Amino acid sequence: MATISFARGVPSADLLPVDELKSAIARAMDKDATGMLLYGDPMGYMPLRTWIGDRWGFDAAGVFVTNGSLQAFAFLAEVLFAGSGGRAAVEAPTYDRTILTLKRFGATVDAYPLLEDGIDVDALEAAIKAGKTPGLVYIIPNFQNPAGNVTTLAVRQRLVDLAAEHGFWIFEDDPYGDLRFSGNDVARMVDLDTAGRVIYSTSFTKTIAPGIRAGALLLPEELRKKMAYIANQTYIGAVHFAHAAVAEYCAAGEFDKGLDRARPQLEARKDALVAALDTHLGDRFTYRAPEGGYFLWGKLEGVDCDALLPKATEAGVPFVKGSDFFVDDSGKDHLRLAFSAVKPEEMDEGIARLAQLL
Amino acid sequence: MATISFARGVPSADLLPVDELKSAIARAMDKDATGMLLYGDPMGYMPLRTWIGDRWGFDAAGVFVTNGSLQAFAFLAEVLFAGSGGRAAVEAPTYDRTILTLKRFGATVDAYPLLEDGIDVDALEAAIKAGKTPGLVYIIPNFQNPAGNVTTLAVRQRLVDLAAEHGFWIFEDDPYGDLRFSGNDVARMVDLDTAGRVIYSTSFTKTIAPGIRAGALLLPEELRKKMAYIANQTYIGAVHFAHAAVAEYCAAGEFDKGLDRARPQLEARKDALVAALDTHLGDRFTYRAPEGGYFLWGKLEGVDCDALLPKATEAGVPFVKGSDFFVDDSGKDHLRLAFSAVKPEEMDEGIARLAQLL
Repeated sequence: MATISFARGVPSADLLPVDELKSAIARAMDKDATGMLLYGDPMGYMPLRTWIGDRWGFDAAGVFVTNGSLQAFAFLAEVLFAGSGGRAAVEAPTYDRTILTLKRFGATVDAYPLLEDGIDVDALEAAIKAGKTPGLVYIIPNFQNPAGNVTTLAVRQRLVDLAAEHGFWIFEDDPYGDLRFSGNDVARMVDLDTAGRVIYSTSFTKTIAPGIRAGALLLPEELRKKMAYIANQTYIGAVHFAHAAVAEYCAAGEFDKGLDRARPQLEARKDALVAALDTHLGDRFTYRAPEGGYFLWGKLEGVDCDALLPKATEAGVPFVKGSDFFVDDSGKDHLRLAFSAVKPEEMDEGIARLAQLL
Repeated sequence: MATISFARGVPSADLLPVDELKSAIARAMDKDATGMLLYGDPMGYMPLRTWIGDRWGFDAAGVFVTNGSLQAFAFLAEVLFAGSGGRAAVEAPTYDRTILTLKRFGATVDAYPLLEDGIDVDALEAAIKAGKTPGLVYIIPNFQNPAGNVTTLAVRQRLVDLAAEHGFWIFEDDPYGDLRFSGNDVARMVDLDTAGRVIYSTSFTKTIAPGIRAGALLLPEELRKKMAYIANQTYIGAVHFAHAAVAEYCAAGEFDKGLDRARPQLEARKDALVAALDTHLGDRFTYRAPEGGYFLWGKLEGVDCDALLPKATEAGVPFVKGSDFFVDDSGKDHLRLAFSAVKPEEMDEGIARLAQLL
């Protein structure tokens, strides 16, 4: 019985742009072998920084390219919290690695409920008034991991206003924003921000391939030197050999072509998952179908998903249990289903297997 | 006036194996596109781990491949010292980034004089008896950076014995060991070690190219899980796209061919540097010519090299001032000349320019 994995937020192997990347790296070596083979700028490979700046509307001087955006977030957590401590605010639920990284560098993590329209800003504001002002607020505004929802414009604007007023940083983690398959884009916080408090994060993991490990932050000026210093001390320069391939791939227009290929494929997977859930779980499973991204999040009423997981893994249908995404004991009746790497024709069997375990 | 830089320990652009790497990455993509483009093992890309294990005589299960060996050392410093503190011992002088990394993660750094035969083991042993036992001893045994010398077998054996007796780790940092152009190899500490206290570190920066950012540790079993965990939390997997190219390059026999090309070139550069020093500085500069590696280290009697550096940089002959390699105020009359990236025909002019500033 082959495994049908709903666990990892990983692109499907059959959708990877293999030929395009193979040709991109060959062109990169022809153009700039010395630039990509010697040490480079700790802020990242300049042709890629320039392309990212142009696409996301930012001066290349503030674009910081690292070996995956997680490494960039670890640098930031070290810069902001190591040695000094402080508070960080996250959505509940949120990406599990973020919680671990913040704690690793000494932050106290406060979680605020993720409502339908985004983080509970009233609760955040009340906490600030009570003296619990965070140094950093971490938000996944588009197709949130794990919840799949989108933060509304109103909540984004309030967050940006609060950041300006209280002087905290907002980390706008946006690896999925380009993977919308229905509905309309919402303005980015970095574009609403007039006080320079938003650090926008983008990643090529979900839109090109994870193995090239390329992520980028758009850094406010105040943070650039500190981040470059810590990158220089950690790895001197990022892996320019890989990032030059990404730069060449992007410059050739392949990035947008890849998105155009991926979006309908992801939507078909989401549709197949929704159909399978309705068929096999019906009212037992409460969820909202996402308009983009990789994940569907929901509640299995009265089911202990922590206990279900080992059985599901044995049945070849692993998922991620909801409790992983909370700092406290919440989420035990929730689970996250990643539909990105499951083919539409496998969905029905996968969910049927899961339903049989209940 | 073109710059003739003696500053950076970087391979010469004209010696980079461009064609070999271009062909290696194409073969890697043909063989294992999915393996190198999806997420991978936090311990590193397995075909490269296997090749490294075979070459350096280690079980691949203990080979930990990261984005440069500096990143690996930062992981280790975090695992050993973050939150808990403790002592680390280094040679004086030693690699400047090592001192900064150890301090960054909270270690107290004790420096012991680097004598002609290696670190002053008597001083280290006396300090241990006085209660200053380090958690980690950091040694560059071959063609030391900056001093260029080689730790003798007797000193290596004593260090290994002390580590077994007192339970500290030895970090054997060996990026230059394969770049010997005269004299004989000395046994590695990792091979003398029967107590499992040596962490051997190798790097492809000096033997293939820096921009591929590939380094590896041979990890004792006790440290593997902790190191894999922290790598997973920091970047999930290393840059497999680049490391697959390295694996293919190495498997095709290009690694040894590259060493055979590099050694005589480096020796010719060292010879030209020695001749230029004798011509232009004579008795004013005291040094020992290295038998391998990238660096020549020496003393400019009565000269303040901290003050000389800005003038030398302006004259287009930057170097690294000796004081950078010490934790205290020592080394002001020393400097490090990297000969790796200076062509033999440029040496005479470079040193002549330097001599004119004195």
